[in-house]
Amino acid sequence: MEKPLILVTNDDGITAPGLRNLIGLMKELGEVVVVAPDSPQSGMGHAITVDNTLYSSRVIVDKEKGAPDEFSCSGTPADCVKLALREILNRRPDIVVSGINHGSNASINVIYSGTMSAAIEAGIEGIPAIGFSLCDYSWNADFTGAHEAIKKIVKEALQQGIPKGTVLNVNIPKTNGKTPRGIKICRQARANWKEQFDKRRSPTGKEYYWLTGEFELLDKGEDTDEHALKNGYISVVPTQFDLTAHHAIQQLNNWSLNEQE
Amino acid sequence: MEKPLILVTNDDGITAPGLRNLIGLMKELGEVVVVAPDSPQSGMGHAITVDNTLYSSRVIVDKEKGAPDEFSCSGTPADCVKLALREILNRRPDIVVSGINHGSNASINVIYSGTMSAAIEAGIEGIPAIGFSLCDYSWNADFTGAHEAIKKIVKEALQQGIPKGTVLNVNIPKTNGKTPRGIKICRQARANWKEQFDKRRSPTGKEYYWLTGEFELLDKGEDTDEHALKNGYISVVPTQFDLTAHHAIQQLNNWSLNEQE
Repeated sequence: MEKPLILVTNDDGITAPGLRNLIGLMKELGEVVVVAPDSPQSGMGHAITVDNTLYSSRVIVDKEKGAPDEFSCSGTPADCVKLALREILNRRPDIVVSGINHGSNASINVIYSGTMSAAIEAGIEGIPAIGFSLCDYSWNADFTGAHEAIKKIVKEALQQGIPKGTVLNVNIPKTNGKTPRGIKICRQARANWKEQFDKRRSPTGKEYYWLTGEFELLDKGEDTDEHALKNGYISVVPTQFDLTAHHAIQQLNNWSLNEQE
Repeated sequence: MEKPLILVTNDDGITAPGLRNLIGLMKELGEVVVVAPDSPQSGMGHAITVDNTLYSSRVIVDKEKGAPDEFSCSGTPADCVKLALREILNRRPDIVVSGINHGSNASINVIYSGTMSAAIEAGIEGIPAIGFSLCDYSWNADFTGAHEAIKKIVKEALQQGIPKGTVLNVNIPKTNGKTPRGIKICRQARANWKEQFDKRRSPTGKEYYWLTGEFELLDKGEDTDEHALKNGYISVVPTQFDLTAHHAIQQLNNWSLNEQE
């Protein structure tokens, strides 16, 4: 049987340790091709490059025997997936995995996540896709504790497929190398960021801002990703790209929008 | 009674005709403050600026008496809303309106839309928000046919509020100045883009790509935004930022994720 073709990407860039970890794991499960941004793309959300040129080149990061084909791309994570599917791969991948992100993409962070945008891009194309993130922003984060769980999740996805119209948002608690307590299927917690803008002045006297902020959890549910992570579990949220709030349609149909005034 | 405070933003940039149209309309309904990108941000999705500095300055585009306060921002549409709420406005806006975008944000385009990311950013903060888009990519598009409908929708939203956890994605058919046939509450049509990469060579010989593509509608439903638009109606889709595919949770709970091997 042909080995499954696994496309690996991320948003922290092609040299990020999280990506290198994921490549190593995926090599155990199939044939791996890497198409990843040539520079960090954190916070890019589902951006795509429409008014600019895109560059892509074959790169060699790993010189070991059996190292996968790797390509860097000047664009966003979503661009990487589009380019991989249309130009680089010669067959449709069996799964697309993105990450492992250095930092949480749980709860509202999914909205801003380049990691998840790559997975969603694949999902829109009908390809099973998973984004992995470790709740540790450090470049030297220890990803080993989650290695077995990541392989387990990808294996299940390859065997069972992923529910139609969804991709998986997997977040891993910071365990510094220890195995998490288990894996929980969750919903996205309600939360937001209380931004603070750090106002400074440039050497030439121009005012500028840095965006900073504090995460504010607004959800006391025990079925949320934040709850699972806080209790040492890996969270798996099925995430959809039909953004319609179907429950709200009836309410809006009561608005007076079509009466003549 | 105090006039409602209306924050206006967009993704085509502060000088875009679509924004200028929307400002003119909103001045009839309340006190307007504009915080918009200093350059076009199309396709930015829900990107935010986390690894770079943000600049913002007061600008005067409109010199007429009663012209609103306007600020340009070097960031994305989502940045504009964050900066407006935390730094620029001295009270919470009653509504945030984004657009009028030059081009469709119906169906899957909502995922890539900077216009909608600004609205969603406000929605996350619990502020009623609406993104408006005209299905005409021309810079000289005629927005007048939709003027009355836009005011009607914003008035209803100010009076009734918007269903909790949602923002409105409003798309307007291209009518070249004629009034659309009416307004329909819809769901997001299933669709995707069949990308084609236009491969070229730079003057110095380096290969690069332009992202191009064709829109592919995968949905025959008559309750979709694409169906409404095709038939000359304005589409209103309640759009949510809880991306959980709740219906898929049960299916995933059947996966063997926590058994010992």
